[in-house]
Amino acid sequence: MVVSDQLERLNRLPLRTNLRGLSPYGAPQLDVPILLNVNENTHGVPADVQAAITEAVAAAATGLNRYPDREFTELRQSLAAYLGHNLSPDNIWAANGSNEVLQQILQAFGGPGRKALGFPPTYSMYPLLASGTDTEYVRGVRAEDYGLDAASAAAQVRETGANIVFLCSPNNPTGTGLGLDVVEAVYDAGEASQAIVIVDEAYHEFAHDNTPSALTLLPGRERLIVSRTMSKAFALAGARLGYMAAAPEVTDAIRLVRLPYHLSAVTQATALAALNHREALMADVEDIKVQRDRIVTELLRMGLKPAESDSNYVFFGGLKDPHAIWQGLLDAGVLIRDVGIPGHLRVTAGTEPETTAFLEALEALLDGRASQPA
Amino acid sequence: MVVSDQLERLNRLPLRTNLRGLSPYGAPQLDVPILLNVNENTHGVPADVQAAITEAVAAAATGLNRYPDREFTELRQSLAAYLGHNLSPDNIWAANGSNEVLQQILQAFGGPGRKALGFPPTYSMYPLLASGTDTEYVRGVRAEDYGLDAASAAAQVRETGANIVFLCSPNNPTGTGLGLDVVEAVYDAGEASQAIVIVDEAYHEFAHDNTPSALTLLPGRERLIVSRTMSKAFALAGARLGYMAAAPEVTDAIRLVRLPYHLSAVTQATALAALNHREALMADVEDIKVQRDRIVTELLRMGLKPAESDSNYVFFGGLKDPHAIWQGLLDAGVLIRDVGIPGHLRVTAGTEPETTAFLEALEALLDGRASQPA
Repeated sequence: MVVSDQLERLNRLPLRTNLRGLSPYGAPQLDVPILLNVNENTHGVPADVQAAITEAVAAAATGLNRYPDREFTELRQSLAAYLGHNLSPDNIWAANGSNEVLQQILQAFGGPGRKALGFPPTYSMYPLLASGTDTEYVRGVRAEDYGLDAASAAAQVRETGANIVFLCSPNNPTGTGLGLDVVEAVYDAGEASQAIVIVDEAYHEFAHDNTPSALTLLPGRERLIVSRTMSKAFALAGARLGYMAAAPEVTDAIRLVRLPYHLSAVTQATALAALNHREALMADVEDIKVQRDRIVTELLRMGLKPAESDSNYVFFGGLKDPHAIWQGLLDAGVLIRDVGIPGHLRVTAGTEPETTAFLEALEALLDGRASQPA
Repeated sequence: MVVSDQLERLNRLPLRTNLRGLSPYGAPQLDVPILLNVNENTHGVPADVQAAITEAVAAAATGLNRYPDREFTELRQSLAAYLGHNLSPDNIWAANGSNEVLQQILQAFGGPGRKALGFPPTYSMYPLLASGTDTEYVRGVRAEDYGLDAASAAAQVRETGANIVFLCSPNNPTGTGLGLDVVEAVYDAGEASQAIVIVDEAYHEFAHDNTPSALTLLPGRERLIVSRTMSKAFALAGARLGYMAAAPEVTDAIRLVRLPYHLSAVTQATALAALNHREALMADVEDIKVQRDRIVTELLRMGLKPAESDSNYVFFGGLKDPHAIWQGLLDAGVLIRDVGIPGHLRVTAGTEPETTAFLEALEALLDGRASQPA
C-alpha cells in the first residue's frame, strides 16, 4: 500500500520521458548461507590484504580534509604495472566501479544521435548505461549457441554504423571468451563510423592459461578500450574500483566528462594496498578456477549442458524447469542466478565446500531426491 | 610539444560535439605552504575521527569481496538523524561528492529539451553538469551587488520556464546566504514548469547562528531538494560524500538513474565514523567561523569590501589589481583564489596562524611594503 502510493507520487514528478513507469526497487538481497548469484569472489579478502588496506586508510585519514589527487597518479602507476604490456600511467583511467568507467565512455563518445551496439545475452548494464546517456542501444545477434564469430560481428557493426561497440569477454552471463580475431574484425569494421570498441574483460584473470587479452591489440588502435575491475579477481566488489586501458588521448577524452575528484583518497588507498599485496589474491584465483572447472565436469556428468567458461561462473542449460531448480537450491540454502534465459541458470564458483554443497543439492534435485522427506 | 600533439590526437577522436575543442587539463595543484584556495577545512581531521575511520574501515575490509549495501541504509539513518527536522532515511540520498548527487538529479529531471537555471556568479560546476547531461543551462541575472531577491528570482523562473533551478546558499563564490523567502518564491514560480528547485547548502554549517536551513521548507514541497556535503564542515573533502534531503519519491527518482552499488562499503564506513564522532569537528567549525569573521573585520579595516559571509570563505572587492595581489600572496606562500570577477578575490578561512599569515601578507602588499627589500 505504502509502496504503491509512493510509486504514484513518483510518477507525478517531472521525470524524464525514458524513465517514466520504471520501478526504482532492485531485487532484495536475500539472507542465504551460500551466495553464488552475483559472481563475487567467494574466497574473501586475504588477511594480509585487509591489514594493508587498514594501514593505507589510516595514513590517508590524516589528510582527508583536503581534496584527493584528482589524477590518482600512484594508482594509475600501479594499475599500469599490474597490467604489463608496456602500458604507462597515461594509458590508464579508473572510476567507482567499471559501471562508472563505461558511463564516462558513453558521456564522451555517445549521447543523442549516437548508437551503441551490444550482443545479448550480455552484461545487463549496457542498455541501462546507454539509456542514461541518451545513447540509442542496438541489440545485435549471436549464433544459436550464443557464440559470436568475427564475420557476423563485423557485418553487424557495418550495418548498424555503431558509434560504440560493447564486446564482453568472457561474456556475462555465458562465461565464454571471445577470440581476438572478433575484436580485430569489429575494430576494422568500425573504421567507417569511427566506432569506439570496448572489450569488457571484468573476469579476464579467471581465463584458462595463455588466453590472450585484448590489451595485446592496443598498440596502433586508438579507438580500442579494454575495461577491467578489481571487484572479481581482487575480491574488492565492496570497494568499487573499475579501470580501463586505452590510448592516452582516450583517457584525456574521459577527463573532459569525469566529475572533479571523482575517486576518493580512501578508494585510491584501498585499491593501491590490494595491488601491492596481490600474491594471496592470485592464489585464490587459481583455486576458484579449479572449482569452476569442477562445476563444468560435474554438470556434464549429470547430463546438463554447461558452457565453456573463462570466468568465475558457469552458465548451464539442459534444465526442463530452471525456476524449480533455482527455488530448490534456494530452499537448500544455495542462491544462484536465473538470468531469464529459457532452460538455463548461472552459478558462481564458490569455495570448495560451497561448490560441493551446490553440486550435491543440484544432483539431489535432478534425481528427484530433494522432494522426498530428508 | 608532447601536449599539443596529444591534444591533436584527442581532437581526431569521435568526441561528442559539445566536448570538441575543450582542454582536459585542470589547474596544476601548487605546492604552497598555506592553501586557502578551494574552501577545504583547514583544521584537519581530528585524531578521534581518524581513529574511528580506521577502525570502521578495518571492519569493512573483512567483507569487501561482497558488493556493498546498495541502499547504504545505516548511513542514510545517520545522515537523517544529523540533519534533524523530522527527516527519515527515506528522505536521504548520497553519492560520491555532491557533484554526483547533482549529476544524478540532472539525469532524472534534466536532459535533452530541458533547461536548468543558475544565477552567476555561482558554483562553477552547474553549467558543466548541465552540459554533461545535455541539459540547456540558462544564466540568470543578479543585482549589481550580487544579491538575488525573491521577486527577481521568481520572475526569471517564470520567464525561462526552467525545469531545474540551482540556488546556492551560502553562494559560492560570494559567501552570502539567500533568504528563505527567495526559495519559497522560486518554488511557487516553478509550479507552471514543475521545476525541481535545488538549494545547495554545502557550507550551511558555517552560517551565523540561527540562520534557517531550506530543510525547514521541505514538508509539502515535493519538488524541493536540499543538497549538503561532508567535504567542508566534516573535513572530508578527500572522502567524497555528498548527500541530499527531499521527498521520498524524489529519492526514488534518483534510484532510477544511480549506478548499482555506486557508494562503496569503504565510503559508507568512513562517513558513518565521522558522523558518529562529530563533536571535535563541530568545535573546529566554530573556530573557522571566528577566523572568517576576523577576515571580514580586518579587510574592512584595510579599506577593502568583503561580502557578508555565512561560509568558510570570504569574497572581497575593492582591489585595483587583484591578479597582482594574488601573485604577491602566492610569492609569500599563501594561495588564495582568483575567481575571475573584476576587482575581487576569494580566500578560505584558515587556522588562526594561517589566517594571520594571509592578513599580514595582504596588508603588506596593499601598503606597497611587499615590493621593498625585506
